[in-house]
Amino acid sequence: MLNAVTDDFVDLLRTLLDAAAFRSDIAPYFSEPRGRWRGQGLVVAPADTAAVAALAAACAAARIGIVPYSGGTGLVGGQIMPDGPAPVILSLERLNKIRAVYPSENVLVCDAGVILANVQQAAADADRLFPLSLASEGSARIGGLLATNAGGVNVLRYGNARALCLGLEVVRPDGTIWHGLTRLRKDNTGYDLRNLMIGAEGTLGIITAAALRMVPRPAQVGAAMLAVPSPQAALELLALAGSQVGDGLQAFELIHRQGFDFLAEVGPEVRQPFDDIPEWCVLIDLGMPAGGNPDAALENLFAAAFEADLVTDGVIAQSAAQRQALWDIRENIPEANRRIGSISSHDISLPLSAVPDFIAQASAALQALGDMRINCFGHLGDGNLHYNLFPAAGRQRADYDAIRVEAVTIIYDLVAGLDGSFSAEHGIGRLKVADLEHYGDPVKLAMLRAIKDALDPLGIMNPGAVLRQA
Amino acid sequence: MLNAVTDDFVDLLRTLLDAAAFRSDIAPYFSEPRGRWRGQGLVVAPADTAAVAALAAACAAARIGIVPYSGGTGLVGGQIMPDGPAPVILSLERLNKIRAVYPSENVLVCDAGVILANVQQAAADADRLFPLSLASEGSARIGGLLATNAGGVNVLRYGNARALCLGLEVVRPDGTIWHGLTRLRKDNTGYDLRNLMIGAEGTLGIITAAALRMVPRPAQVGAAMLAVPSPQAALELLALAGSQVGDGLQAFELIHRQGFDFLAEVGPEVRQPFDDIPEWCVLIDLGMPAGGNPDAALENLFAAAFEADLVTDGVIAQSAAQRQALWDIRENIPEANRRIGSISSHDISLPLSAVPDFIAQASAALQALGDMRINCFGHLGDGNLHYNLFPAAGRQRADYDAIRVEAVTIIYDLVAGLDGSFSAEHGIGRLKVADLEHYGDPVKLAMLRAIKDALDPLGIMNPGAVLRQA
Repeated sequence: MLNAVTDDFVDLLRTLLDAAAFRSDIAPYFSEPRGRWRGQGLVVAPADTAAVAALAAACAAARIGIVPYSGGTGLVGGQIMPDGPAPVILSLERLNKIRAVYPSENVLVCDAGVILANVQQAAADADRLFPLSLASEGSARIGGLLATNAGGVNVLRYGNARALCLGLEVVRPDGTIWHGLTRLRKDNTGYDLRNLMIGAEGTLGIITAAALRMVPRPAQVGAAMLAVPSPQAALELLALAGSQVGDGLQAFELIHRQGFDFLAEVGPEVRQPFDDIPEWCVLIDLGMPAGGNPDAALENLFAAAFEADLVTDGVIAQSAAQRQALWDIRENIPEANRRIGSISSHDISLPLSAVPDFIAQASAALQALGDMRINCFGHLGDGNLHYNLFPAAGRQRADYDAIRVEAVTIIYDLVAGLDGSFSAEHGIGRLKVADLEHYGDPVKLAMLRAIKDALDPLGIMNPGAVLRQA
Repeated sequence: MLNAVTDDFVDLLRTLLDAAAFRSDIAPYFSEPRGRWRGQGLVVAPADTAAVAALAAACAAARIGIVPYSGGTGLVGGQIMPDGPAPVILSLERLNKIRAVYPSENVLVCDAGVILANVQQAAADADRLFPLSLASEGSARIGGLLATNAGGVNVLRYGNARALCLGLEVVRPDGTIWHGLTRLRKDNTGYDLRNLMIGAEGTLGIITAAALRMVPRPAQVGAAMLAVPSPQAALELLALAGSQVGDGLQAFELIHRQGFDFLAEVGPEVRQPFDDIPEWCVLIDLGMPAGGNPDAALENLFAAAFEADLVTDGVIAQSAAQRQALWDIRENIPEANRRIGSISSHDISLPLSAVPDFIAQASAALQALGDMRINCFGHLGDGNLHYNLFPAAGRQRADYDAIRVEAVTIIYDLVAGLDGSFSAEHGIGRLKVADLEHYGDPVKLAMLRAIKDALDPLGIMNPGAVLRQA
């Protein structure tokens, strides 16, 4: 069993950490974006890796839980421990330095508390691109983005956070420091600890720094929004785009007309590019090196796809502003969703070829359950759908309390039956622990537990996240 | 302590496995490419995953070691257990089916015993590319390639084996089966077991099947061999190529004139493209989608690089045959090395910007140690050098017995001092266990040991590989 933070423990920490580590305005650390939980505990922001290590060692000695807190933008409660013995909330916010930039190596080394937008800017300052990009990039911090293996809109081309990390510095729950901050592209010397820590959601250790992979900035970019007759056509268009433009394909996002309708209903205001909003459309984004011609590539793609009945209408951005306007539609859908207020939200992935079946089957099963609106959109190129349920017009979220659990079960059972995942990019946190137990392969669960017990034998790291407390 | 295979144990296995599982011609399983070790044990080739599981469970019950044997091409002795209680050599050769190909998903699922060249062919039959490519592709099997996280010539563009795998089926040392054979691009549901198994060299379980990532076949390819004035110039050329051709850059290989000299001395015969062989040259390979023009890109690159004094001479392949001829040079250097006979061979990686310093410092220190020939070549785009030492002309390998250990120490100490790795793509096996202990971060070593003990508590999986037997 873990112990709660006591006054004596706080006194001890005051001898180990500088005064600035103790935060006064602690309310923000106790809430999370979806408002499901209220947090608790002692908020501490160590100044550097050594201070994190001292803090971890003290917590281990006292058997006090540590909840790493990065940008606080997680959607599954990984950053909030609502009950149990009061833990230490370990904020990364003061680990905020870009340590070094190596343009010739396409590598950037930074503290784990640096905000994603600042990493993007540091890369841009070196004429490089750090391609991780997602809605919360103005507040999400690198440590949490790695701990949750964040995805976003450029995964199709550049991979998720895991693919963009070469090395890590990690404080273990016993206070020792793993110096794994390598800039190497190849290093086959023992088990892959980097990828084990990435995606572990702070349950195996505290990421304090990372060596990140930058890429050349695409010299030429372009975007198009194309109406497709069906999700199946969208998939075939994706394959056609892959064969025509190869790695130049940066993003391939599916949008249902429900997203446009929500934007019209509650904002944010966007300029929608179609005379008649299609039931389904895709946003395609291209990036090419110097000499490439994304607009011509998009025109060729449109022509070939139109010929093959894969698209029925479309616009190709004629300027950077038009490209941004197309992206504004995609990026404002989550805010419109928030304003409408979902019955439930799902971050699922499927084998690509199973996506059309899922959409058809889920829609039929849910409409049989009750009158609701479904907003299905997301990263089709990755097989990752954000599949969110909303009240029918004029009804309230609370009207659906009786069927919410059944709706979620319908969706996750369908996903499991099609070999998909109930958490594509958001992680497990505390929200989906029971789902992992229910849908996870028992042999996998046994291995997760064995690893957790091996690397955090006292169970102090982010207690109750990913795995139920032993 | 482990037990040796006994006659009674063989009798037991005969009740669990079909007759074909027991191999008659066992000599090949007891040798390895570099002739350092002789193996021992009972060679068994289970027919399918269920048979592998039954075998593992029997070994666990009897506490008998299991040495997974894939293509047998490993260079660090991971597939050979030369001493200790006679183990079971578990050959993957009968797990040889392509299970399914999903062209629209760019996914191929196959048994772990399929030979790499057959996977490449299955992908080609679906008009796709499986980009893993290396010298032993005609005999190396997928299970071993994944267990060692193999590299090869296309890592620069497509990543190593790890980056080409979406899911695994693994038999654990207790005989349970982890069904992790997902085709998903995104799945954040618990720790990254896939990447933990990849690169574990069969010490945590037996990979029995994999879901592999295919990519669109580049429609247009091209290659050039360019003379560069120095390794530093080669690095700057790499950066220039990255900015000019982006992801189209498939391979960027460094070759020292020693390689040409060895080919001239002992063959294999190749057509060398330069009037005067330069001290350093690079082989650049491009692949582009339809509409791309690799030849024009290479001409532009040559012109810009010549202007910037980064290249002094060069040839651009004018046909597929010429491109192959350039690759023949690169691919025959390892065979020439074998014919010469090395004093010692090293598979190292470095931060890209440290490569020139390493080459200069290592050469100076080694020449001070004794008169020898150094053949330095490899995957510069990945910071991965094959750095091999050979006797001076007219001298023998045995003449260097007295200084071999010192030479290796010079190289690995330099690599460590420059934050490099003493094993970039070959792994640890049994050859480099002591190096891992010496050069590895102690905290890392503690974590490796904890994971090994957690996932293979009896220590039966590939005993003595990666980690010394506990």
